[in-house]
Amino acid sequence: MTPQKPSVPKGTRDFSPAEMARRDYIFDTIRQIFRSYGYQPIETPAMENLTTLLGKYGEEGDKLLFRILNSGNYLENITEDIGGTKDLSRLTQAITEKGLRYDLTVPFARYVVQHQHEIAFPFRRYQIQPVWRADRPQKGRYREFFQCDVDVIGSDSLLCEVELAQIADRVFSDLGIGAILRINNRKILEGVAESIGQKERMMDITVAMDKLEKAGLEPVMEELRLSGIPEDAVTKLEPLLRLEGKIKDKFLFLEELLQHSEAGRKGLAETRFVLEYLRKLELHNKFDFDITLARGLNYYTGTIFEVKALGASIGSICGGGRYDDLTGIFGLPGVSGVGISFGADRIFDLMNEQDLFPVQIGTSAQILFLNLGSAEESYSMQVAERFREAGIAAEIFPSAAKLKKQLEYAGRRGIPFAAIIGEEEMSTGMIMLRNMGTGEQREMREEEILFEVGMRKEEAGDNY
Amino acid sequence: MTPQKPSVPKGTRDFSPAEMARRDYIFDTIRQIFRSYGYQPIETPAMENLTTLLGKYGEEGDKLLFRILNSGNYLENITEDIGGTKDLSRLTQAITEKGLRYDLTVPFARYVVQHQHEIAFPFRRYQIQPVWRADRPQKGRYREFFQCDVDVIGSDSLLCEVELAQIADRVFSDLGIGAILRINNRKILEGVAESIGQKERMMDITVAMDKLEKAGLEPVMEELRLSGIPEDAVTKLEPLLRLEGKIKDKFLFLEELLQHSEAGRKGLAETRFVLEYLRKLELHNKFDFDITLARGLNYYTGTIFEVKALGASIGSICGGGRYDDLTGIFGLPGVSGVGISFGADRIFDLMNEQDLFPVQIGTSAQILFLNLGSAEESYSMQVAERFREAGIAAEIFPSAAKLKKQLEYAGRRGIPFAAIIGEEEMSTGMIMLRNMGTGEQREMREEEILFEVGMRKEEAGDNY
Repeated sequence: MTPQKPSVPKGTRDFSPAEMARRDYIFDTIRQIFRSYGYQPIETPAMENLTTLLGKYGEEGDKLLFRILNSGNYLENITEDIGGTKDLSRLTQAITEKGLRYDLTVPFARYVVQHQHEIAFPFRRYQIQPVWRADRPQKGRYREFFQCDVDVIGSDSLLCEVELAQIADRVFSDLGIGAILRINNRKILEGVAESIGQKERMMDITVAMDKLEKAGLEPVMEELRLSGIPEDAVTKLEPLLRLEGKIKDKFLFLEELLQHSEAGRKGLAETRFVLEYLRKLELHNKFDFDITLARGLNYYTGTIFEVKALGASIGSICGGGRYDDLTGIFGLPGVSGVGISFGADRIFDLMNEQDLFPVQIGTSAQILFLNLGSAEESYSMQVAERFREAGIAAEIFPSAAKLKKQLEYAGRRGIPFAAIIGEEEMSTGMIMLRNMGTGEQREMREEEILFEVGMRKEEAGDNY
Repeated sequence: MTPQKPSVPKGTRDFSPAEMARRDYIFDTIRQIFRSYGYQPIETPAMENLTTLLGKYGEEGDKLLFRILNSGNYLENITEDIGGTKDLSRLTQAITEKGLRYDLTVPFARYVVQHQHEIAFPFRRYQIQPVWRADRPQKGRYREFFQCDVDVIGSDSLLCEVELAQIADRVFSDLGIGAILRINNRKILEGVAESIGQKERMMDITVAMDKLEKAGLEPVMEELRLSGIPEDAVTKLEPLLRLEGKIKDKFLFLEELLQHSEAGRKGLAETRFVLEYLRKLELHNKFDFDITLARGLNYYTGTIFEVKALGASIGSICGGGRYDDLTGIFGLPGVSGVGISFGADRIFDLMNEQDLFPVQIGTSAQILFLNLGSAEESYSMQVAERFREAGIAAEIFPSAAKLKKQLEYAGRRGIPFAAIIGEEEMSTGMIMLRNMGTGEQREMREEEILFEVGMRKEEAGDNY
């Protein structure tokens, strides 16, 4: 057989040890914060039944699902001529019944309904797993990527919104990312549409408003007109689109505008509660009330969140909102929840770009025992085992290769110390310790080395 | 739409918070040991190109691959006759080009070849990820399951074998699983076949011998005869099949039997080296030299490992071996490696069965702040945040529900303490701490509580 040129599928990636260390740094930080607020992990299978996934992400989303070909003779019940009829969607339906998960929200809704009798509500859960989308790959957009979702389900208390904002603030503060948290409320958007006499056109209006930051005022107004919103309604909207400045001023304006809309007034009250609470909690990052924030997904019913990194061109790195009926479609209506999702891959790219990872991050051994021959090797094996028991990751070079080669290996791997045990050391019980950074060597006792290597490990914050 | 009854695909599972805590306990234990020996993590995509996967697991394995239906108009290049004749395998090939990974070994080989210029050899790597097989689901066998692989590649030193045996020993010792490590060598099996004049029939002979423990002597001899091994060869094999007892006696017998087989002598020497080393290292678990151990996979060329749990009906919980040319198929010949794989799901089932998990394992919060109303809630939010900063996972009940309901929630969630802050506590700065286990309540200062809750957390070994 001719050798195959090895590659991974388009839009997917391998993660090297150095990349894993950085990714784990992000995941561990996020996970620890989630847990400190009492959130508990769940995991769901990579594959879901297509009946669970289809129809939840819009027509476009359905097309982006990766479908698994049925096993065995999947053509068994196909009667027509496949090549002849080319009725793609009927055939697809007939030969696939499972798909890869597209996000973590729908599997979570399915989980909650399926396990409702085991769950103590309100249920605070987090989930960190990959998702797959057959999107066109491009810079920063992958076909396999990781989501970190955190949700409270089974409570309509606005305290949950406050807590999630706190968590997002804490995550970005701990990762060293300067961020701004923007908050809006779906009910305010409803109120706005109602107040300009276009209640039924809320979706078109919010979709257009969402583009304000990127496109600017005129193009948004033009889009509104083109979508058939009457000129007088667009005119009524204009001052809102021009609205900038203090949160207080935004409220003053909106109270006036939304006075006759029940939804609008409720949305304003909810937003006021959340923002007031956040002000009292003294977050590390700035937050703002952004009336143009819409977010695409249809299932939000209340608060909407989005986090953007300061000084970065990258899009949102975290977002979410309140949904009043996510589980209804699986037969459990009337359960309110709220959640946010962190985009691990964008956060990873951003932290690389802004050089935010700690220098000493890594999963290498702290010390390499050089291999000087079979007697020395056997002796070193025992010493290395004692190092491991003391919490020091220790490697031994597996063969008595040239010392130069062994030291080069330690260098390439980024191992900070090398231990050299030859005949003399075996007889005296000492160990020659080489600092790989400076090249210094010193005969030391085992306990001294354990202390020195351990200190360095602690300084580096490495805690394997 | 009528609600769908929610379910997961056959052979797959959700993991609840309680199950996640137990699984993480296993993964964390394993990961920490891998790292202490200098092994570094990698991850590869869930999907691989089918050209990478096909032909690596035998014909049966190819059938068990989950294939991903191509995106878009996957029938575009299908000519009518495929549909007409229903030529399944041609159609399958035409409409799928990616599959879910079947194990971690082949993706690892692909990784090594693809990234060979970034890797410092010998490369010690571990990988903990799910794999998928379209097997018939049954008790203890899933379609999505987790493997924990640890390999050294780029060294033919037998020290690597020794180290992996040490790692397996350490893993099962740390998990509290009594285990026996069985070792054999593919070259010995070759030598045996050669010595009874049946060099070409090695596969049939080892496949039959592998069944000795389960089936017993007579059925194995019968299988050998049925597979066409001549009677005199079967007769020569019989004493070997009856061979029990001390490792020393096995060597004595085999040295005689294999004296004219070069492969056999080499296999014996290798095995002697490994066993001698393990004896010196004083493992926690027993190990044995088991001449009937074959393991299915074709790519092993030297040492073969298998670990079974004592007192359990479950099959092997860990296994592996040396392969001299795993990367050859991807264009990098002559790279020797050795690795073992831990079956996380079987280990999980076994530990549940034998009740080996620590009692206090869990990811719940350590303390629940009850919610007595808006002023108290706001005050508690600040106290809870200080608890989190002190490393104590703290939850607040999101609404001022009846206290009975809030306490029931704490009970169901297994949260050990509840903090009650009412008007009086707010004025005195004290907190009423309720021990959820005993029901005792006591007014305490915040620092006292931090100390008490922290102590309990430390005792429980919980380290979120």
